[in-house]
Amino acid sequence: MIRICQFGAGRIGSIHAANVAAAGATLAYVVDVNRDAAAALAAKHGARVAEAEAALADPSVDAVIIASSTDTHADLLERAARAGKSIFCEKPVDLSMARVERCMAVVKQAGVPVLMGFNRRFDPSFAALKKAIDAGTIGKVELVQITSRDPGPPPQDYVKVSGGLFRDMMIHDLDMARFLLGEEPVEIFATASCLVEKRIAEAGDVDTAAVTLRTASGKLCQISNSRRAVYGYDQRLEVLGEKGMLEAGNQKPTTVVASTVEGVRGDKPLHFFLERYADAYRAELTHFLEVCAGKAKPIVGIEDGRRALQLADAANESLKAKRAIAV
Amino acid sequence: MIRICQFGAGRIGSIHAANVAAAGATLAYVVDVNRDAAAALAAKHGARVAEAEAALADPSVDAVIIASSTDTHADLLERAARAGKSIFCEKPVDLSMARVERCMAVVKQAGVPVLMGFNRRFDPSFAALKKAIDAGTIGKVELVQITSRDPGPPPQDYVKVSGGLFRDMMIHDLDMARFLLGEEPVEIFATASCLVEKRIAEAGDVDTAAVTLRTASGKLCQISNSRRAVYGYDQRLEVLGEKGMLEAGNQKPTTVVASTVEGVRGDKPLHFFLERYADAYRAELTHFLEVCAGKAKPIVGIEDGRRALQLADAANESLKAKRAIAV
Amino acid sequence: MIRICQFGAGRIGSIHAANVAAAGATLAYVVDVNRDAAAALAAKHGARVAEAEAALADPSVDAVIIASSTDTHADLLERAARAGKSIFCEKPVDLSMARVERCMAVVKQAGVPVLMGFNRRFDPSFAALKKAIDAGTIGKVELVQITSRDPGPPPQDYVKVSGGLFRDMMIHDLDMARFLLGEEPVEIFATASCLVEKRIAEAGDVDTAAVTLRTASGKLCQISNSRRAVYGYDQRLEVLGEKGMLEAGNQKPTTVVASTVEGVRGDKPLHFFLERYADAYRAELTHFLEVCAGKAKPIVGIEDGRRALQLADAANESLKAKRAIAV
Amino acid sequence: MIRICQFGAGRIGSIHAANVAAAGATLAYVVDVNRDAAAALAAKHGARVAEAEAALADPSVDAVIIASSTDTHADLLERAARAGKSIFCEKPVDLSMARVERCMAVVKQAGVPVLMGFNRRFDPSFAALKKAIDAGTIGKVELVQITSRDPGPPPQDYVKVSGGLFRDMMIHDLDMARFLLGEEPVEIFATASCLVEKRIAEAGDVDTAAVTLRTASGKLCQISNSRRAVYGYDQRLEVLGEKGMLEAGNQKPTTVVASTVEGVRGDKPLHFFLERYADAYRAELTHFLEVCAGKAKPIVGIEDGRRALQLADAANESLKAKRAIAV
Repeated sequence: MIRICQFGAGRIGSIHAANVAAAGATLAYVVDVNRDAAAALAAKHGARVAEAEAALADPSVDAVIIASSTDTHADLLERAARAGKSIFCEKPVDLSMARVERCMAVVKQAGVPVLMGFNRRFDPSFAALKKAIDAGTIGKVELVQITSRDPGPPPQDYVKVSGGLFRDMMIHDLDMARFLLGEEPVEIFATASCLVEKRIAEAGDVDTAAVTLRTASGKLCQISNSRRAVYGYDQRLEVLGEKGMLEAGNQKPTTVVASTVEGVRGDKPLHFFLERYADAYRAELTHFLEVCAGKAKPIVGIEDGRRALQLADAANESLKAKRAIAV
Repeated sequence: MIRICQFGAGRIGSIHAANVAAAGATLAYVVDVNRDAAAALAAKHGARVAEAEAALADPSVDAVIIASSTDTHADLLERAARAGKSIFCEKPVDLSMARVERCMAVVKQAGVPVLMGFNRRFDPSFAALKKAIDAGTIGKVELVQITSRDPGPPPQDYVKVSGGLFRDMMIHDLDMARFLLGEEPVEIFATASCLVEKRIAEAGDVDTAAVTLRTASGKLCQISNSRRAVYGYDQRLEVLGEKGMLEAGNQKPTTVVASTVEGVRGDKPLHFFLERYADAYRAELTHFLEVCAGKAKPIVGIEDGRRALQLADAANESLKAKRAIAV
Repeated sequence: MIRICQFGAGRIGSIHAANVAAAGATLAYVVDVNRDAAAALAAKHGARVAEAEAALADPSVDAVIIASSTDTHADLLERAARAGKSIFCEKPVDLSMARVERCMAVVKQAGVPVLMGFNRRFDPSFAALKKAIDAGTIGKVELVQITSRDPGPPPQDYVKVSGGLFRDMMIHDLDMARFLLGEEPVEIFATASCLVEKRIAEAGDVDTAAVTLRTASGKLCQISNSRRAVYGYDQRLEVLGEKGMLEAGNQKPTTVVASTVEGVRGDKPLHFFLERYADAYRAELTHFLEVCAGKAKPIVGIEDGRRALQLADAANESLKAKRAIAV
Repeated sequence: MIRICQFGAGRIGSIHAANVAAAGATLAYVVDVNRDAAAALAAKHGARVAEAEAALADPSVDAVIIASSTDTHADLLERAARAGKSIFCEKPVDLSMARVERCMAVVKQAGVPVLMGFNRRFDPSFAALKKAIDAGTIGKVELVQITSRDPGPPPQDYVKVSGGLFRDMMIHDLDMARFLLGEEPVEIFATASCLVEKRIAEAGDVDTAAVTLRTASGKLCQISNSRRAVYGYDQRLEVLGEKGMLEAGNQKPTTVVASTVEGVRGDKPLHFFLERYADAYRAELTHFLEVCAGKAKPIVGIEDGRRALQLADAANESLKAKRAIAV
């Protein structure tokens, strides 16, 4: 049975811990600067609270899950890699490209497998859409549209340390663009505004963004982001190819539809990522356990994290320069 | 922590056992005439294999789940009731109305809570539809339509002992009709055919059926059943009221839609009850644990089982008599 | 150019007259007991107002459209038939079966083509569904569901002379059932209530009905009617066959969908038959002109009118007798 | 009755002529360099074939419809304006901005009303979406997405004289963007590829394009175009605002859906603009007749034509410069 040490006992950490239990693996240690949170999560799943050093030194620990705050990711990745553990790390590796590259070098030398938490690749609908592309359902991909909108903007404290919309939010869509295009973007153009809440502009950030990617062979991708979709988490994909179009739409809590004098009304999409990507998190963890067991290689790795960050940085550059940036 | 003894280690038993574990209750014993199946399921969830007598005699057991074959239900209900356990029993109580009534008397005297496994009442969409009725979204209910079709007919061995389509399959829809109409049917008309496979007629059964119910105040309900919907498990509700209509549709594995020269194509509905009602089984078990803990009363009980059987028997009578039967 | 005499200058008459003009035929005469209505419609399309006798005596008139009140249909059918005109007659032929049969004999002897106005057979979606059945898309038909609900009940004056829900409203659905089943019903069961407005019961009629048909080979059909669907004209078909299901849904004025905090809301269905079946009326008239030109035979004739009435009468009988009636 | 002279007897001319007839106006003259086409269309609607000079000199002619080839538009606009006729002109005014501006001056001096043929503004669904924006359904507009794809690329002869994708095809979407944003774009970025057929690149054009617009207040709009959507004419709008999202989807020939072992399949969208925008052409003509009758002012005029062309030209400039262009 695979034994896991998890860093981070917050919202996303709780999900991973539950998925570890449900999948039949063992949560051995929980590490968190918030000792109470660590203790509560550990108690729930029969794990022990520990310090990072001790936990990583335990040879019975096969793998680590890094679900702590962003600024700890690179350091923990290096330490876990040096300790020879299999690693599942939430995105991003780091907000600094230089730091990412140093970290990648350490990981590479250690030779351990790293799964980066681009959870959307594991969403059953998005994964099925990608599978349909690969099966040739629509022939060569020509034009990708990615819609990604949060139900509401994050608190100001989060905005300030988030690294900005492109690195915090659109990074998921930039990874999805690479996943769907099946070829690297070579050019990016970004424009964006602060339309939702003024405080976001005051923090030097934007809340509404439109990005265009272009690959070497001329495939195009449009991404749009907003920090506010009052009707719920709006997560849709659309891919046009020579033989047709594939779409993956939003998911809803129920199928109930009410027809009244006011029209025909159905549910809003699921509220946010915890609800919408519940299945994706489960599938992601299952995949990680297969990686730990040596039965699979990570389908998304640290290099994918670096690429997505690179695109996000180029988006920021394009936003300022008002021109396409080569990547 | 609630301790449970489960009778039955088959397909549906496995689901309940997993839900018990996920919900944080303890599976103490597994009882099954198939000792291997019992042992496997017990091992998976840290339970012990036992005989019924020993398990029911254990005072640390709070509750029983009866998921064994239909012919054992009434007997186990009585024994568990006499032992003072809270009971969750798969439908039906029995195929004989006289036996059902004897069993009800025993249970009543014991005073234990019994939850009958009409799982569809716990389906999130169906439950939300019922809630919308109760909230007055469509005013008074006038006309209910229930569509219920299996992906394919059961094996002949099952057909022979099933009690017939009305008591085996439509019984769920008859319960749903009562749930949605909010008032007891007083009249039933049934017609049916064998159109799917001749072997079903050879076993004295039908595979395609249309039933009409009528309540005292004149509300109407149409139910249709088929043992074969090649596109998957077709489970839909529709309720017309004075202020509108409520519908609950099928559920699909993914939201992926492909538009090609051949049309616009999406997924088939989920294959069968294990997939479609996975959330319902989970919610049902959660409710049962609340019942065990004394925090809730069963929302569907043994009397509901009796009523549904009575309607199924009347449907059989109507089918033969070619007239409406008062119930 | 085909020259037409139209009886009836009311709501449905106006539609037929406009379709005659649009299709490039000539409206020669308009006959209506309401001379003002006749004059207005005639003026709009360059026709003349006439008495029935004169119009039918004009040898330059090729065809008649009978869109006057129900009680005039049989008489006009006979007179037009004797005058050798091609006939398009709104349903029903008459509310009395004996009268229908006498009329049929006259028409038969005259040898003129008669198209009965079962407009729904010409609805593009319903016609496409039938075509898909005939093309074998779902194999043998097993189970048909017909939903047919008006947006609101007719005025009391109309209710009193309508002949009752089965002969006035469900007659369309009974014809559709025959059309889709592809084989004659041999048994009918009907139940019905007055749930919408008490005045309807006071007129001896019902407003909510559920009917079940059965063919010789055991195919089943369920029809439901309501005089009130506050969300608009609800006209849907569903056919289950051995290889799948075909559905035809409601039509909406626009495709606009609004997602807000209150849910995801689209248009109600088109309001009533004039809007919903506008295309059907157009196609029906085009077909009639082809019949007049000798290029086609009526796809629905006076015998279909008789059959539908027979089923409606049997539905009334079943409603009273509470049993299935053989037809 | 309004008397009209129509220039152009081709595909779109035939539609306008039929709509003129259906709306109760008179088609007096048809002018076309192809005399046979002119004669055929004139015969069908009881009009006369004429030369431009004679037709424009006829004082009984109230209005002209310009549906001839693009290179004749500006000249005919000027001549018709000088003759004091009300004008309905298909887009574009001209492919040269200088020519457009000269033409506008002439028209302005003549003081005649000009309706530009941006037919999509008249599409019932698009018009309803715009009305919902204006009604405040989604509050302030933030982000607009326009999807516009032809079923297949035009013939090479057309490609060569079309003026290029931005001025020929996307010009409709650029007008729609202005319509929906409710404020002028001040910046445009375009990128595009030739992915569909090499011959298009050989003619110096592109077939797949992604454009981003930005208004002064920071509202964003993404437009995507492709010359090939094998599943039919793909014409969709989506508008995100502070209080929700509005969408207008594709339209389909029928509502028929087939559920089989292969999935759940519905119709493809209507094939191309003649089918999809049939209602829009009708509504547009009706509006023009109201303009002719002095009852309405053109809802889209020659200045809108100039603006759309300006944006198309800027898109071409952006494509070459790889940067956002201020407009």
